[in-house]
Amino acid sequence: MNKTQVLRTLIVETPSVPGNFAKVATAIGNAGGDIGDIKTIKIGTLSTVRDISVQCENLACLEEAVQAVRDLGGGIQVHAVSDDVMKVHEGGKIHMKSRTDVRSVGDLRRVYTPGVADVCTAIQEDPEKARYFTSIGNTVAIVTDGTAILGLGNIGPVAGMPVMEGKSVLFDQFVGISGVPVLLDTSDVDQVVETVKHIHQGYGAILLEDIGSPHCFEIEERLKAELPIPVMHDDQHGTAVVTLAAVLSACKAAKVDPEKAIVGQIGLGAAGLAICRMLMAYGVKDVYGTDRDEEALERLRSYEGKTLGSLDELMEKCDIVIATTGVSGLIKPEMVKEGQIILALSNPHPEIKPEDALNAGAAYAADGRLINNVLGFPGIFRGALDAGAKEITYSMLIAAAEAIVYQTKEGELVPHALDPSVHRAVSQAVENAVSR
Amino acid sequence: MNKTQVLRTLIVETPSVPGNFAKVATAIGNAGGDIGDIKTIKIGTLSTVRDISVQCENLACLEEAVQAVRDLGGGIQVHAVSDDVMKVHEGGKIHMKSRTDVRSVGDLRRVYTPGVADVCTAIQEDPEKARYFTSIGNTVAIVTDGTAILGLGNIGPVAGMPVMEGKSVLFDQFVGISGVPVLLDTSDVDQVVETVKHIHQGYGAILLEDIGSPHCFEIEERLKAELPIPVMHDDQHGTAVVTLAAVLSACKAAKVDPEKAIVGQIGLGAAGLAICRMLMAYGVKDVYGTDRDEEALERLRSYEGKTLGSLDELMEKCDIVIATTGVSGLIKPEMVKEGQIILALSNPHPEIKPEDALNAGAAYAADGRLINNVLGFPGIFRGALDAGAKEITYSMLIAAAEAIVYQTKEGELVPHALDPSVHRAVSQAVENAVSR
Repeated sequence: MNKTQVLRTLIVETPSVPGNFAKVATAIGNAGGDIGDIKTIKIGTLSTVRDISVQCENLACLEEAVQAVRDLGGGIQVHAVSDDVMKVHEGGKIHMKSRTDVRSVGDLRRVYTPGVADVCTAIQEDPEKARYFTSIGNTVAIVTDGTAILGLGNIGPVAGMPVMEGKSVLFDQFVGISGVPVLLDTSDVDQVVETVKHIHQGYGAILLEDIGSPHCFEIEERLKAELPIPVMHDDQHGTAVVTLAAVLSACKAAKVDPEKAIVGQIGLGAAGLAICRMLMAYGVKDVYGTDRDEEALERLRSYEGKTLGSLDELMEKCDIVIATTGVSGLIKPEMVKEGQIILALSNPHPEIKPEDALNAGAAYAADGRLINNVLGFPGIFRGALDAGAKEITYSMLIAAAEAIVYQTKEGELVPHALDPSVHRAVSQAVENAVSR
Repeated sequence: MNKTQVLRTLIVETPSVPGNFAKVATAIGNAGGDIGDIKTIKIGTLSTVRDISVQCENLACLEEAVQAVRDLGGGIQVHAVSDDVMKVHEGGKIHMKSRTDVRSVGDLRRVYTPGVADVCTAIQEDPEKARYFTSIGNTVAIVTDGTAILGLGNIGPVAGMPVMEGKSVLFDQFVGISGVPVLLDTSDVDQVVETVKHIHQGYGAILLEDIGSPHCFEIEERLKAELPIPVMHDDQHGTAVVTLAAVLSACKAAKVDPEKAIVGQIGLGAAGLAICRMLMAYGVKDVYGTDRDEEALERLRSYEGKTLGSLDELMEKCDIVIATTGVSGLIKPEMVKEGQIILALSNPHPEIKPEDALNAGAAYAADGRLINNVLGFPGIFRGALDAGAKEITYSMLIAAAEAIVYQTKEGELVPHALDPSVHRAVSQAVENAVSR
């Protein structure tokens, strides 16, 4: 196959009338597109939806083929043109599956009426039994308002759904948790809190996800205070757990005692503030934060954190520097102090490239490519659910970070996220920490 | 095996200390219990949960064995004693599964970051694409406040969860829909409507389930008016669809023209009122309802339905009588008119037994054992989702009822719920009705 050829999948809907598909095939062929596999996604009485693989010489030829199909009219529609990555997401990545087959009247009577009534009555008499006879205790709501989706920002909860489904996939694949996305159409703190409270009984825990700053702080604080189940905002504490693990590993490599080091956090958004709080909870005596936003500084002070007025001051003062600003190249080589540990975590472009930091005299430097939340949240929630925890505490989060460090191979910053032993180790450490 | 022997499964949690299980086995054995299969449900660092099958001579012996384990102390707990039916529900009946495996870094990059960003951006640019690249369009929220669970009444949403999971199981098994329970901790109409509105973007449709009367009426009306997706209260309209199908089949058997018949509905709760409205929508000219509650009569009149003051009057006047009162034996044989069609639907004890009605002169009589909602809702929602319908209309519901009649074998009242062709037929009829 020619290297410059492009292979895409067209999702095409045609009214269910004989001859319509031939028109589509002809249009693609005339435009120079080569048709490969065809998969029927839906055969309806009114319309049929097909996945049509098309190979073209180049993107211009592909666009021509797509336009030719669109121009056919008569109800024929091209719904999407997907590449390899898009294809994985087609039809969504998750599905609520039955754990039992219904094949006979006996099955139906057992899983539904009348058998189900016995189970309902048993739970009514002893609500604790819901833990054993429903999926609630193994289900985590993945709640977002879509205001801070990945690096994409406020794109809304529907456009953010692929991320929520991704989290659900990882919950299922890594730790067997049933993760259920909840898309909120509001970012009003009162409305979010009320809504989540009204539906919380269906879940064993709440994962807040990609909720923007500053409203994420009050939402999490209030839900933690008012709900009897664990609540965690992953972009704050999940990130902070993995960052703490990375800091501990870096300290080990650079032979620095983290508790006695002076640590500086540049950027006090959701992640930055949580990292400061986590370091303080871990026992680091001197943690300083800085941000251009006075409100963010004030927030850190409200958690009894110390602030510094400028980036220069922070770079000058600190042994370990962590940056989560999203500003590429913010840290200049001339700011780097001899022997400093620098974790410039902004993705995909760090505040300073590791090689530049090392050349400028840093003892250890890394960027954020490896600091992936995937290492934290699955095991943290598995452990919390297994322990029947009512909340997620700092001792549980620190136990998670220490388990990640323990699983990290020498010379690495964090372990590999696909290693199942990491998630098992995190889960067990968290479960143990509950009873401490 | 002796016929009077009982076989049960004990869910036992023991602290993870060697020797604890032996204590449990000894206690059961000393009480005369025979231990069968043992399944480890959870091995934690703190505690282990096991399913222990125990066979006993009789229930007294079983109770003794359970008590002996409970008396062990030291943190050993018997969480539940389940029979065959209960066992199907252990751990819950549903799980949000990934539709794709995550086995390599490539997989992770495709389903999660960074690949997922492309999909999010595509949906942000064209929100219609959410239909193809997320699970939203195939997901139905199963919403309850737990106030009218089966015949059990107001037992709360958590005790009602096994029913919601049952609905989800049937959605998955019969029509491939992802059904997600939503448990509401409030029955306040404003709060229910607000909560469902705030989370509706995550679903392709809303199934209201086991919500009590009268608040179910306003909740459904307001959600239908305010949401851009299909909303249906199954206990009203799902029941009405299957009842209409049964009425049409009964008329066919008794050679009566349903549109010209005088039909009486006894009991105007959620189901009864919906049946009246469905019959009127179908085109039956003379539909009368009766109820002891003046408010219920007023409600029927508000939908332009006709009411009668007493049961006797209704029995005297009507050719076809449907009863959904929950009052066993309400219809006395002496009330039955020669040639009447009587559907006494209360479960498990009908208003009049079919044989008594027939002996008293009825032309056709049936009870509610077969009138199962399972025949309706899966196909109705499948059809509505496939058509991209914005609402569920009477023409869609009547099409569903007609499809059920069409699938009914001669001499039967309704088809078999496990026959996949029924759900396919309902789904296609509903989809077709959308474009009518």
